[in-house]
Amino acid sequence: MYDQNVDLTTVKTMKALVYHGPGQKSWEDKPVPTIKLPTDAVVKIFKTTICGTDLHIMKGDVPTVTDGRIIGHEGVGVVEEVGTGVTSFKKGDHVLISCITSCGKCDYCKKGMYSHCADGGWILGNLIDGTQAEYVRIPHADNSLYPIPAGTDEEALVMLSDILPTGFECGVLNGQVKPGDVVAIVGSGPIGLAALLTAQFYSPAEIIMIDTDENRLEVARTFGATETINSGMQNVTETIKTLTNGRGVDVAIEAVGIPATFELCTAIVGPGGHVANIGVHGKSATLHLETLWAQNITITTRLVDTVTTPMLLKTVQSKKIQPKQLITHHFKLSEVVKAYETFGNAAKERALKVILTNE
Amino acid sequence: MYDQNVDLTTVKTMKALVYHGPGQKSWEDKPVPTIKLPTDAVVKIFKTTICGTDLHIMKGDVPTVTDGRIIGHEGVGVVEEVGTGVTSFKKGDHVLISCITSCGKCDYCKKGMYSHCADGGWILGNLIDGTQAEYVRIPHADNSLYPIPAGTDEEALVMLSDILPTGFECGVLNGQVKPGDVVAIVGSGPIGLAALLTAQFYSPAEIIMIDTDENRLEVARTFGATETINSGMQNVTETIKTLTNGRGVDVAIEAVGIPATFELCTAIVGPGGHVANIGVHGKSATLHLETLWAQNITITTRLVDTVTTPMLLKTVQSKKIQPKQLITHHFKLSEVVKAYETFGNAAKERALKVILTNE
Amino acid sequence: MYDQNVDLTTVKTMKALVYHGPGQKSWEDKPVPTIKLPTDAVVKIFKTTICGTDLHIMKGDVPTVTDGRIIGHEGVGVVEEVGTGVTSFKKGDHVLISCITSCGKCDYCKKGMYSHCADGGWILGNLIDGTQAEYVRIPHADNSLYPIPAGTDEEALVMLSDILPTGFECGVLNGQVKPGDVVAIVGSGPIGLAALLTAQFYSPAEIIMIDTDENRLEVARTFGATETINSGMQNVTETIKTLTNGRGVDVAIEAVGIPATFELCTAIVGPGGHVANIGVHGKSATLHLETLWAQNITITTRLVDTVTTPMLLKTVQSKKIQPKQLITHHFKLSEVVKAYETFGNAAKERALKVILTNE
Amino acid sequence: MYDQNVDLTTVKTMKALVYHGPGQKSWEDKPVPTIKLPTDAVVKIFKTTICGTDLHIMKGDVPTVTDGRIIGHEGVGVVEEVGTGVTSFKKGDHVLISCITSCGKCDYCKKGMYSHCADGGWILGNLIDGTQAEYVRIPHADNSLYPIPAGTDEEALVMLSDILPTGFECGVLNGQVKPGDVVAIVGSGPIGLAALLTAQFYSPAEIIMIDTDENRLEVARTFGATETINSGMQNVTETIKTLTNGRGVDVAIEAVGIPATFELCTAIVGPGGHVANIGVHGKSATLHLETLWAQNITITTRLVDTVTTPMLLKTVQSKKIQPKQLITHHFKLSEVVKAYETFGNAAKERALKVILTNE
Repeated sequence: MYDQNVDLTTVKTMKALVYHGPGQKSWEDKPVPTIKLPTDAVVKIFKTTICGTDLHIMKGDVPTVTDGRIIGHEGVGVVEEVGTGVTSFKKGDHVLISCITSCGKCDYCKKGMYSHCADGGWILGNLIDGTQAEYVRIPHADNSLYPIPAGTDEEALVMLSDILPTGFECGVLNGQVKPGDVVAIVGSGPIGLAALLTAQFYSPAEIIMIDTDENRLEVARTFGATETINSGMQNVTETIKTLTNGRGVDVAIEAVGIPATFELCTAIVGPGGHVANIGVHGKSATLHLETLWAQNITITTRLVDTVTTPMLLKTVQSKKIQPKQLITHHFKLSEVVKAYETFGNAAKERALKVILTNE
Repeated sequence: MYDQNVDLTTVKTMKALVYHGPGQKSWEDKPVPTIKLPTDAVVKIFKTTICGTDLHIMKGDVPTVTDGRIIGHEGVGVVEEVGTGVTSFKKGDHVLISCITSCGKCDYCKKGMYSHCADGGWILGNLIDGTQAEYVRIPHADNSLYPIPAGTDEEALVMLSDILPTGFECGVLNGQVKPGDVVAIVGSGPIGLAALLTAQFYSPAEIIMIDTDENRLEVARTFGATETINSGMQNVTETIKTLTNGRGVDVAIEAVGIPATFELCTAIVGPGGHVANIGVHGKSATLHLETLWAQNITITTRLVDTVTTPMLLKTVQSKKIQPKQLITHHFKLSEVVKAYETFGNAAKERALKVILTNE
Repeated sequence: MYDQNVDLTTVKTMKALVYHGPGQKSWEDKPVPTIKLPTDAVVKIFKTTICGTDLHIMKGDVPTVTDGRIIGHEGVGVVEEVGTGVTSFKKGDHVLISCITSCGKCDYCKKGMYSHCADGGWILGNLIDGTQAEYVRIPHADNSLYPIPAGTDEEALVMLSDILPTGFECGVLNGQVKPGDVVAIVGSGPIGLAALLTAQFYSPAEIIMIDTDENRLEVARTFGATETINSGMQNVTETIKTLTNGRGVDVAIEAVGIPATFELCTAIVGPGGHVANIGVHGKSATLHLETLWAQNITITTRLVDTVTTPMLLKTVQSKKIQPKQLITHHFKLSEVVKAYETFGNAAKERALKVILTNE
Repeated sequence: MYDQNVDLTTVKTMKALVYHGPGQKSWEDKPVPTIKLPTDAVVKIFKTTICGTDLHIMKGDVPTVTDGRIIGHEGVGVVEEVGTGVTSFKKGDHVLISCITSCGKCDYCKKGMYSHCADGGWILGNLIDGTQAEYVRIPHADNSLYPIPAGTDEEALVMLSDILPTGFECGVLNGQVKPGDVVAIVGSGPIGLAALLTAQFYSPAEIIMIDTDENRLEVARTFGATETINSGMQNVTETIKTLTNGRGVDVAIEAVGIPATFELCTAIVGPGGHVANIGVHGKSATLHLETLWAQNITITTRLVDTVTTPMLLKTVQSKKIQPKQLITHHFKLSEVVKAYETFGNAAKERALKVILTNE
């Protein structure tokens, strides 16, 4: 139902990054999207970025994404047109695009679980065309866009489309980080660093960052990690045991997405602690219930709901957080293919998030 | 430090059930316990019972239990003697014995996590002598005993030593059962039934009981289950899918303790739901993160804290729950070996909980 | 913007109860409402009722209600017509009308605080025409109507428009009623009784009902009150002190709306307890901070959000609650003026809720 | 039962500040306290301070304090002697004294409501002799003292006896301060400033400090207030309305203790907001239920429980908070009378907290 069978000769065209099967992508002409339902908006992209998930899509790991799809689920832009049912936005409004589409009406939306919206969830750049393009159609615009307050650094807000709410909701909120806690974050990539930044909203006593990439650990220290462990060189479980007097951590946040890192989290968490999974997993993990059954722990999983976006916007405006810290590279939107190369070699390029500007 | 090297010829003796290695137990003479620390009490057992864990101990599955240990961690009785530091109880008081010993002073106790008390936790009938005896010494008596209100049916309260708080705290509270919820309980043995009884405190819309034993499912229906599934004869996942219009349950409570039943719980829980583990596990389970990562679920484990015992006592007194429903057999305490046989053949004997009375 | 300046000779007309200033109401012809915005629905009323608030309106106590307004904010009916933006309902659907209109888009709605919806809240029969009519226009229909499951007793659901969510949200949820609690409800009218019925979702040990009307206290006992106090004949504070061994109640629910009853609640609540106000107040109360400052109490106020309506629907369907118990009288909708008389003499008529049927 | 009828000629004596009725105090000889119960400890005071409550006591406003009482409920020191029932402390241990005595056994202590401990609560310098002395007896030492980690700045920890947990528990926790919130604190004295410091644990967007003393507002700005309002010169309600676009604040913390400031809090809080009272009140306030009934607000009162002391100790050690900021003056303990003068003229002396050192 989301296909756009249109005659390219009669419609306005734009440039967009299109997926053409595993390993195949191109920056090509596509029709400018139009309003299909009264609750839609069309947004002209100002800035967008590339997500780790986009790399997975490009490899063919995400079967819901099919040939011809425009990729991308993050960005800020300006409203170009709204449907007759949109009441909160009008042409010209500067908006933040949420990676999650929410109808605001279904049972899940009413519970604040937008990720499982009956007519939304993560569909942008997945089931419908996305944001790595000059224009994008946003369904249920009233509940899926956020107004950008005048004077805000819009580039920084691109981090609020996905990465910051993901680190915050799936990692920090689900992990129930509290003042005085010892928090461990396994994985110091962009998502782990987003968790690191937002964990500090709750003033934990210690945040221990774990990764194999020394550069990323160094970044983590400048972002507020009180301790770093290079898991390629140190025994993490033993080091944590020492750091916590044998107790284990209060919160262990998984920000990688493989069985080993998840299992590490369950090994380092102390009695009464929380394991909060953020990582996108492709395989099962082993859950050591033979020891964990009596440890009074909580394990959570979550696809980001972006229900905290209004809260995060306030913390950005009040400078409690500097999302810009996550941005390492800039490209023109038309250079998106090159940007994928850089982002795809994140370790070598020391890349965290790249910004693509539609100039 | 808990050994009792005493000369049996000079001390008062009593009868007790003693563990002598895998498969070996006897009803034999032991010295009556005495006050060792100012915070101790000695309680004369009035009624006790046998726990599923005791069967595991007898098989040799619990390595912390050593030869010579008196078994048992449940019961009611009368205070015989108290140490100088005990202020809440005196000789003659009728008391409920908690299966969990709590010092009330350590970090874990202050957080209400008595199960991990630095000088307690589950030690009765494990690290120190237990309640399947004529007398028992209770450390930290002020925090580990509960006064029995006059006029209460004391036999029923034996169910509050372990089984009801376990079903309630590990299953119902951790599962966050709410009015209108659909709850599934996997395992219709005594613990699953305790979860079934206490889940009704929160008026869920449906409670689906799952087991392979038709008799136990029948009991479940009389205890308030709205639906039962015989997992030996029906496809549980499919049946649940049908019953919930494809959504899955809000709460899945694991009350068996094997990988298959735990994995079943993670298969039937819906987005946003809770898997609450009660079972004592001896093996790891597989956690299907490849699907669960995006399901916004919560998994909890817990050794009972008995922190809700005062609440449960109030619900018993106000007849919101009838713990007596769980009692199927009665024996004299001196018939404890025979009682083990009955309880060990629970399915055949249609046994739930057996009461042993010290006459 | 809500006025309907229409020529009655050219439009379809219906009968409705219209307010014409203090003490003035009439059952008269009005135009059948039509769709004004894409998110509207027009509902043909099947059954409605009269609220205590309607009596206040009729006295002229609610200044937002102006001459010409159709009164009423409760009811069930059948969808007659929907706007182009309504996606969850269609003509012919049987629906429950919420007393609270929710846009589902504003900050308050996103927080679940529909009562303060930027384009809704309590507007039905207040700022816009209401339900004591043959037809009613419902703005933001997708978020303000609820589908009635086939086979449900629709009359009973009229109690879910306002009174049950009000008793439940403002009284029981805000009061944080827990298993084992001692709850006092001051006021045994329809709202107090709704709190009484829904408090039982959480299995409190005792529910003490307080009123001056012996008949209503008798009703309360049949509805599950464990204790009743006639405040016209007994000293409530002293009686509560005796009943709670000097401790005070865990939860005190105010269901009258005058200073004396609110102050009574703060007098009978124990340390750590909750005072949950439901009553609509016209005057200030005295808050005895000179004693309360050190009592660790929580006081809440709330205009019902009806955010729990889906939960309540499930409890009705699963028969955890019998809303029909609240219904004492039946009238034809055309007899609404007579119904007001009966409801206005509730004590004498032994009236709780009256049902008006549009035959 | 707490009187000490001892012959001063035969016992060791010390110096202490003694209350002798309204306006009468003296620095005089008193017997050194001794162990009375097995759970007692005697602590040699190292540093103590004066609380606003002590000023009230000295005026005769606290009737529970009688002639002859040694005043003071804050301090750090070294354990001199412990009773036989004390297991967590021994002679020589450096300890933080909690202003609240907790038995750890009663119903209230088990709920974490130490303020209402059946054998404790606020008794130090009130019902029993306090800390403005060279030695003090601490009942229930295991639950009422906290070990000071080696290397900690002990002087700073005096702020953890009362003022920081009070600001944190009664103001910040009860007010449910969240990231992004707008918080108003009425009263910029030591308690209000303690709330200001600890509110920042949760990264609110704005903290508006309200007082009549320009110096204290200046201090507030250096402590992290984002906005200050001089209530002697500005209309607070109007200013807040402007600052919050008419919405009101999310959290209003009362840190003065008079009707006007409490009522101000209820006037500036927005729908869904929290009013958290810290102030000690001597008079009733007016609660404007005629408007508040529909505002969905929560009002809390609380005598500090000091249940967060372990958490606060961790935040001090990890430098998330600098309690020393609250200390403005230093005296020898023997100069306590002079210290009272300074603290009693806080505005003129620009005094927040004074430290008294037992040299």
